[in-house]
Amino acid sequence: MLEDKSQELTPISKLGEFGLIKHLTENFPIVQNSTRLSIGDDAAIIDSEGQKVVVSTDMLAEGVHFNLGYVPLKHLGYKSVVVNLSDIAAMNATPTQILVSVAVSNRFPVEALEEIYAGIALACNRYKVDLIGGDTTSSNAGLVISVTAIGLENEDKIVKRNGAKPNDLLVVTGDLGGAYLGLQILEREHSVYLANPNMQPEMEGYDYILERQLKPEARTDVKAKLAQLDVLPTSMIDVSDGLASEILHLSDQSKVGFNVYEEKIPMDETTIHTADELNLNPAMAALNGGEDYELLFTIASSDFDKIKNHPDFTIIGHATENNAGNFLIARGSNQLIPLTAQGWDAFLNKE
Amino acid sequence: MLEDKSQELTPISKLGEFGLIKHLTENFPIVQNSTRLSIGDDAAIIDSEGQKVVVSTDMLAEGVHFNLGYVPLKHLGYKSVVVNLSDIAAMNATPTQILVSVAVSNRFPVEALEEIYAGIALACNRYKVDLIGGDTTSSNAGLVISVTAIGLENEDKIVKRNGAKPNDLLVVTGDLGGAYLGLQILEREHSVYLANPNMQPEMEGYDYILERQLKPEARTDVKAKLAQLDVLPTSMIDVSDGLASEILHLSDQSKVGFNVYEEKIPMDETTIHTADELNLNPAMAALNGGEDYELLFTIASSDFDKIKNHPDFTIIGHATENNAGNFLIARGSNQLIPLTAQGWDAFLNKE
Repeated sequence: MLEDKSQELTPISKLGEFGLIKHLTENFPIVQNSTRLSIGDDAAIIDSEGQKVVVSTDMLAEGVHFNLGYVPLKHLGYKSVVVNLSDIAAMNATPTQILVSVAVSNRFPVEALEEIYAGIALACNRYKVDLIGGDTTSSNAGLVISVTAIGLENEDKIVKRNGAKPNDLLVVTGDLGGAYLGLQILEREHSVYLANPNMQPEMEGYDYILERQLKPEARTDVKAKLAQLDVLPTSMIDVSDGLASEILHLSDQSKVGFNVYEEKIPMDETTIHTADELNLNPAMAALNGGEDYELLFTIASSDFDKIKNHPDFTIIGHATENNAGNFLIARGSNQLIPLTAQGWDAFLNKE
Repeated sequence: MLEDKSQELTPISKLGEFGLIKHLTENFPIVQNSTRLSIGDDAAIIDSEGQKVVVSTDMLAEGVHFNLGYVPLKHLGYKSVVVNLSDIAAMNATPTQILVSVAVSNRFPVEALEEIYAGIALACNRYKVDLIGGDTTSSNAGLVISVTAIGLENEDKIVKRNGAKPNDLLVVTGDLGGAYLGLQILEREHSVYLANPNMQPEMEGYDYILERQLKPEARTDVKAKLAQLDVLPTSMIDVSDGLASEILHLSDQSKVGFNVYEEKIPMDETTIHTADELNLNPAMAALNGGEDYELLFTIASSDFDKIKNHPDFTIIGHATENNAGNFLIARGSNQLIPLTAQGWDAFLNKE
């Protein structure tokens, strides 16, 4: 669990609640102009400077969203921030502040919390967001991290899920399916380790997909790239639960259908090879795997020329009339397969 | 745990994550003008309309902040909102929105979550705040509730912890110590119940302090009352961890000392009687008990006449020079007792 296993460990009770929060948050600089008051009062103060405030929250629970058997705490802290920033990016807004609450059992020493907060600090620094509040408490059980992310944007630039129109193009950033296959490799090697702790895990060659699972990034860069192309999406969502589930959300809220071409779904070579190795269909990993944290959006078909050659964006389908349904058009055939949301569900106990 | 124990119970897995959130949040109306987009997108949108945004977050964990053996789930939902609104009130701001995340183990049926959300709905309605986001996830263990509260206020009306000056008067709203003594009665009767489930709990006569513990209210009314008196506090904090701890926070951030008169600390009769019965010092319950969610603030001494006869406010002391220290002046003597923060601490495992 801890990176340096030789250090002396400090019980949390030694610092107490206030001491702990102060200790964990003392090295977080404030970089956003909009942060007028940070940690240390009853509440933080934000000056939205005429922009709208965009706010989202997500909770990660041990044993459900992560397994401390193979997830380093620093990565966990980083990822818990990133998944929330991804929601802000999916509104086409710029993330500016976060609040982080952590519940830990007394089996965790202060050093474990320090590693989580080191990961949070890394994310704050990477994405230029300020940690402005939070809470740290003991729990009778596992580790639970709750993050609220705040972003700012002018009203006319904010993109919701409900603006897609028939014939709009469906576009996705980056590539998909990697995070899910990274998880499969981590679980495979963890099972091997549990069966025989002397076995060395076989992680070589899987770097890309392991990083996609353990240290995903939020596509906060997309906003500027689209602005440079003079493209404003008509609807947008982030890919946290799998492409199929996200398409159904856009369909539901925009009142359109979608046709998606299997052969167009962008996937990394490592993703495809690993899927082959594990006897999985890589497209299924993209459609149902989730946790890729790419952005899925629609643009007017008249914007096609602006976006068609951009290395970050792949057109994977288009919107159809309301009630036309949502379909995957299978590779090498014209077969229409109805899309269903088999996406990741915290209550299905997949693990 | 459940109010109606005869109903049929639904496992959470039957609804799934999206179905569950939709089901639990479908009856939350939007009442605030500033809420431009609520639950259902990647993030909610708030229009701060030129005011500053005030934001705070708190986490409640089973077995640490509450014991489901005697805390009804509806009360828990209500209280988890109130403790966050109290932080917004302590900034002299008006709470407008909340986001709520809940982690529950699969031992909780959907009906348990419905009761928590019924309590949340009651608080939203009572305080006119909008539920605009959140997350619901399973956990491997206990129940954890994380709430983020958002408020709005003009910059010149926001009150921080750092503005108290020497000779300012120290004022507290309502009365103190009740919540702590309510908890002692609940724990006593719960122990009796565990020892002999056929014994009827003796709760009669304790109504006031039980309600202070189980269903506290946030003093969002104070802002308007102070405005009507034309008083703007110089510093303010809410009493969540006990009077002593809060005084030390104001002292630390305002760089002043405080003298507090034991005989001035407002206490309800039930609080005093129950303390007597349990052989506890009622002033100690006020100083160290916490969870009263009253507001503690300082005002310029020139505002004395404006506030002196108001039934909601009690002057309990005054600020002294920086480094003069923080003291309780004992009842019936002039003995100065140094104030120390023995307040409630989630890591001391008091329960």
